[in-house]
Amino acid sequence: MDLKAIIAQMTLEEKAALCSGKDFWHLETPERLGIPSVMVSDGPCGIRKQADAADHLGLNASVPATSYPTGSCMACSFDRDLFRESGETLGHACQAEELAVLLGPAVNIKRSPLCGRNFEYLSEDPYLTGELAKNYINGVQSQNIGVSLKHYAANSQEYNRMSSDSVVDERTLREIYLAGFETAVKGSKPWTIMCSYNRINGTFAAENKRLLTDILRDEWGFDGYVVSDWGATTADRVKCLEAGMDLEMPGKNAANDKQLVEAVKNGTMDESVLDTAVERILSVTLKYLDNRKPETVIDFEADHEKARKIAAESMVLLKNDGILPLKREQKIAFVGKFAEAPRFQGGGSSHVNSYKVTSALEAAKDLRVTYAPGYAIETAEPDDAMIAEAVETAKNADVAVVFVGITDAMESEGFDRKSLSMPKNHEALVEAVAKAQKNTVVVVMCGGCITMPWLDDVRGVLYAYLGGEAVGAATLDLLFGDVNPSGKLAETFPRRLEDNPSYLYYFGDEQNKTEYREGVFVGYRYYDKKNLDVLFPFGYGLSYTTFEYSDLTVDKTAMQDTDTLTVSVKVKNTGAVKGKEVVQLYVGMPKSRTIRPDKELRGFEKIELEPGEEKTVSFTLSKRAFAYYRTDISDWCVESGEYVIMAAKSSRDIACTATVQVESTTAIKRVYTMNSTVEEIMESPVGREIVGKMMAASPLAQMDDDGLGMGEGMERMMMEMPLRALISFGGDSVPEGMGEMLLQQLNA
Amino acid sequence: MDLKAIIAQMTLEEKAALCSGKDFWHLETPERLGIPSVMVSDGPCGIRKQADAADHLGLNASVPATSYPTGSCMACSFDRDLFRESGETLGHACQAEELAVLLGPAVNIKRSPLCGRNFEYLSEDPYLTGELAKNYINGVQSQNIGVSLKHYAANSQEYNRMSSDSVVDERTLREIYLAGFETAVKGSKPWTIMCSYNRINGTFAAENKRLLTDILRDEWGFDGYVVSDWGATTADRVKCLEAGMDLEMPGKNAANDKQLVEAVKNGTMDESVLDTAVERILSVTLKYLDNRKPETVIDFEADHEKARKIAAESMVLLKNDGILPLKREQKIAFVGKFAEAPRFQGGGSSHVNSYKVTSALEAAKDLRVTYAPGYAIETAEPDDAMIAEAVETAKNADVAVVFVGITDAMESEGFDRKSLSMPKNHEALVEAVAKAQKNTVVVVMCGGCITMPWLDDVRGVLYAYLGGEAVGAATLDLLFGDVNPSGKLAETFPRRLEDNPSYLYYFGDEQNKTEYREGVFVGYRYYDKKNLDVLFPFGYGLSYTTFEYSDLTVDKTAMQDTDTLTVSVKVKNTGAVKGKEVVQLYVGMPKSRTIRPDKELRGFEKIELEPGEEKTVSFTLSKRAFAYYRTDISDWCVESGEYVIMAAKSSRDIACTATVQVESTTAIKRVYTMNSTVEEIMESPVGREIVGKMMAASPLAQMDDDGLGMGEGMERMMMEMPLRALISFGGDSVPEGMGEMLLQQLNA
Repeated sequence: MDLKAIIAQMTLEEKAALCSGKDFWHLETPERLGIPSVMVSDGPCGIRKQADAADHLGLNASVPATSYPTGSCMACSFDRDLFRESGETLGHACQAEELAVLLGPAVNIKRSPLCGRNFEYLSEDPYLTGELAKNYINGVQSQNIGVSLKHYAANSQEYNRMSSDSVVDERTLREIYLAGFETAVKGSKPWTIMCSYNRINGTFAAENKRLLTDILRDEWGFDGYVVSDWGATTADRVKCLEAGMDLEMPGKNAANDKQLVEAVKNGTMDESVLDTAVERILSVTLKYLDNRKPETVIDFEADHEKARKIAAESMVLLKNDGILPLKREQKIAFVGKFAEAPRFQGGGSSHVNSYKVTSALEAAKDLRVTYAPGYAIETAEPDDAMIAEAVETAKNADVAVVFVGITDAMESEGFDRKSLSMPKNHEALVEAVAKAQKNTVVVVMCGGCITMPWLDDVRGVLYAYLGGEAVGAATLDLLFGDVNPSGKLAETFPRRLEDNPSYLYYFGDEQNKTEYREGVFVGYRYYDKKNLDVLFPFGYGLSYTTFEYSDLTVDKTAMQDTDTLTVSVKVKNTGAVKGKEVVQLYVGMPKSRTIRPDKELRGFEKIELEPGEEKTVSFTLSKRAFAYYRTDISDWCVESGEYVIMAAKSSRDIACTATVQVESTTAIKRVYTMNSTVEEIMESPVGREIVGKMMAASPLAQMDDDGLGMGEGMERMMMEMPLRALISFGGDSVPEGMGEMLLQQLNA
Repeated sequence: MDLKAIIAQMTLEEKAALCSGKDFWHLETPERLGIPSVMVSDGPCGIRKQADAADHLGLNASVPATSYPTGSCMACSFDRDLFRESGETLGHACQAEELAVLLGPAVNIKRSPLCGRNFEYLSEDPYLTGELAKNYINGVQSQNIGVSLKHYAANSQEYNRMSSDSVVDERTLREIYLAGFETAVKGSKPWTIMCSYNRINGTFAAENKRLLTDILRDEWGFDGYVVSDWGATTADRVKCLEAGMDLEMPGKNAANDKQLVEAVKNGTMDESVLDTAVERILSVTLKYLDNRKPETVIDFEADHEKARKIAAESMVLLKNDGILPLKREQKIAFVGKFAEAPRFQGGGSSHVNSYKVTSALEAAKDLRVTYAPGYAIETAEPDDAMIAEAVETAKNADVAVVFVGITDAMESEGFDRKSLSMPKNHEALVEAVAKAQKNTVVVVMCGGCITMPWLDDVRGVLYAYLGGEAVGAATLDLLFGDVNPSGKLAETFPRRLEDNPSYLYYFGDEQNKTEYREGVFVGYRYYDKKNLDVLFPFGYGLSYTTFEYSDLTVDKTAMQDTDTLTVSVKVKNTGAVKGKEVVQLYVGMPKSRTIRPDKELRGFEKIELEPGEEKTVSFTLSKRAFAYYRTDISDWCVESGEYVIMAAKSSRDIACTATVQVESTTAIKRVYTMNSTVEEIMESPVGREIVGKMMAASPLAQMDDDGLGMGEGMERMMMEMPLRALISFGGDSVPEGMGEMLLQQLNA
């Protein structure tokens, strides 16, 4: 269908109407011109399709669907292929459910472990986030289903999310909060992007032209439509549209549609703005309509197995003193209600009406497993009788596996967590069992990180995160070694909440401003720089085998930032079983003149190795791997100098390093002024000559230090002196007009 | 003399000439009208008068003067009277030396322990800073000598101090970096203020009208003149003058004087601006000239004893397991070159040509003291032979006292420290001696704080700071208990440099911007909030006796912020010797809705108690003690609610608490918008009624939670919903125009 021709036939009112939904889940289309309405649905870790169109609020139960591990869990796979496959599977299901757009993935950066929605988000690191999101999107969209990459942008708290103002400096925005979006937009061309609820530096995301148009479209080349998060449109619909926020959801907002009509009629907005939005929306809708496959059938059993596989590839083994893997012939006590009623997904828009849920207890039904709940889910108060029963059960077994975590009441979309602690009854259960049974393993189900005061008292910890509907089977796959754990933490586990970089300012002030004062020092970037001990570092995770790294090589030792660098490292499985390893590549610049993290993740590859097998893993690094965002030139820039390339098992376990000299090709014209320091001026050959002479002739050169007692400090002080001060202190030795003359020569 | 009449007789050129110095130390005056030139001189902890007028640079040796303990040392006295007496003594000496203005006190806030000039500054706390500075100024000015309160403002680093830009948010500026200046200006009316070298939020201090005029004069009532720090005047002299920077130093800057003449002639600057500056400068100069006392005689011996007294009241006893006080009959080894050649002052403009210096070794000449230098001052490298000799000396004594610290090469005006460590040879000496002699006491001479990896290995630590020329005698006064230690740290000693709140951003970025991102969380305000373990907390210091606090009472339990609160606490000397205690009063608001420190120092009193004696110490708290600076109303504001009053021995040793309910009298008109949240709206009676009804009628109230799994989170989410979203989600239940109508009623 010819889009322009269709739009030409639409009335002004029809075009305006098309810019808000038809109802909660359906888009408005020009049905009289033969284009049927299409439906969108929540994601990102399963489909939440609400079949009952009469439910205006979108809050009722949805049709059954497969519940996959949440973002925080799945990101620990560090597996691009898994993300792509997962996207394909979801896109396939969307075709079956006749959904044009799946509302996800959610790629906000984990700024604080308190964020109630962290379970949906991928990581504290934008590189990892971008790479995984890109593959997920490519997967979904390969099925001719659109995604809605969300929530754009800097929406890293739930508290007052609809009104809070995220105050973020430009460099931090670029390097941390936008970078994941940028990678995904450039690498997978998402059909739609969802703007967030919050303000960014004073302007609501929905009204933020800089974000929605200047950066998203003009810089990154986004060509889909921007949809508001449900309810994120501001009272000024015209401003939103002009900013680039094309589609308002939920529908139908007749009053806002009317605003658009009026604005065109009274000439305050050009009709072409409206036409552009309509074209974007219809273009995506037609793309879907032109290749629908409503005959698609979902194989729920097969998808359940996929959910199981993803979970097993993602869960992280945090501690193992040799007790794991368990053996099937052992007498095992499962303790903790989550063994029977697992927590496997989060609350809110991502909540799926799961096809079926496999608990660990059910998955173990053929084993010698005993069970005691140990706590009730509805309360955080320890119940002595339940704990006593659990302790007895644990005592009478060879091994106790305690299933604990965070409850729905403590973690969900819509509100933030209050602390990093598990509920008291969960903690009490772990402690009591560990005291009674020396062979205790803990399985934690939680969307984010927790503190573990009991860590030293147990022999193993498997972090299941929110593992999707097959969580029980996946947990057993790992506990028994049927699958060798390979998940690595996509976020740092701090020792205490207070250690988190956003701690002082996280919830915002009384004026509802949340200042991102830690800047680029988010996650490991902060813990590294502050040299802080952490509970578990970013990128950390154990295996049932061991890996050795060697022979890190770079294909050149010096390069320009327009070149690419190939890095290779050998990795060998030195243990007895097959296993997967996530080879991580970090880059740092120890002698940087600016303020930057010690190191940043710039590459990762997940490989599988048989016992004794060795593979060479290669990475290609280009400019961006060395660059930081310079606000004075509004661009990415490489500082010339030596960079360290680190191949690592985790952010705190660097296996091999190499260095490379990178030279910047960005020409930054330096403008010298009377405020330029002697040191700065002497970096120029002209300046070195003239200022050198000035300094030699200056009375400063003949000074007697006795009066100041500064020793060598005097030299440092002089180097930091601006030209104006050098002249002022120089007295008669400096001819009038000398400074101006020097500046002319320097700036020539 | 009639000032207006004098100015009327001056030519334009004479007036302009008067706005820069005559030479390095002298002010220009209309000598043809009978007003002689006057001289100013560096302070603040002694006079640095350079008799040789031919020295254009002011760098040569000065006339002998008494060197008092530096600001960082003396602040630990927490003694207002001592600061006043010290000021009087210095003012008296200035009369003798015929100096019109003493360039001090230096009251910048210790943001980082790396600041090379911290030794001159008083504290990390603005209240303590302001109270002490005020008394010092009142002391100096009681002698009809002016001070120059410096360096105004936000000049908390030496690195690139002449060009760096201190980027500080308004609230932090007001609460932390300006508050000490404010207290001093209001409480002691300094004759002059010295503007700093740096930029503040992009504008050089010398050009900063907001700081120099709007805040300093219009808000605080300053009526003296502003002088530039030597060389701080920018290339735009007219802009500086218009900003309120009256006097340029050093002189003579004929080119800049000419700028002023030209500006008046070509009409770009009104001559009245020049007249005002001239009037301010001459007014202060005449005040001095009208009451000169050139016949004044300095009693250097008496002043030396004053320096000794101040030092003994200020040095801080950090550790004592009972080894101190020493006994004169003990065989004592003094180890460390600083015992013989003490470090007692800092390098730079405050450097005094001391009248005489008493080392500890000299002060102990009548005792059974042996000595070994242990290290050379010129190097940081350990010398095995010297250490071996020192160890032998220590072994052969009953007690070893190790004198160590930071050298001039590591700490001075003009450059910043690189670390918190002592030189390697000092550390090695302490460790070696402590290993050989179990009775080891360490005396540290340093302008700021250090780390103490050897702390657990020694039995006592006396922190001498930079104790002035009588440092040796004062040290012995304390070591032998002739004076009972009463100094309390005016700054926190962190365990590691990385723990410091400014650590990530301290030196500034490559564009020379130093962002004060930690905001108001400077010093203990940060360590408290982050719940960080510290080496020694703010306000900490030991005594040879013990004190007990009891009966903290407040004269009311509820008040308006226009009332004052009287707080009393009983303090008893429960030990065996007479001693002084610094009773500290902190105020905090645990349930504040804004982001603020857990507690802040709001009062202190130093009292002396005989053994068994008890005194009641009273404090008066008024609005400011409860207030924070609200940027939205540009004023100090008290948040209504419960405050905790803490009487404390240190910031980490709270002895007694009481609470008071304070009600704000600041009327802040709330403006409701479509972005106001349900929670905010329901705080108003009108809003509660209408929105209550809306919510009850809304489909949200009848929702089925099964689809979202959010449980109670749904309620929280709704409370945080802005009005616009409530309407958007409300669907048909909300009549058109409902929101606007509600807002009209709310804002009526």
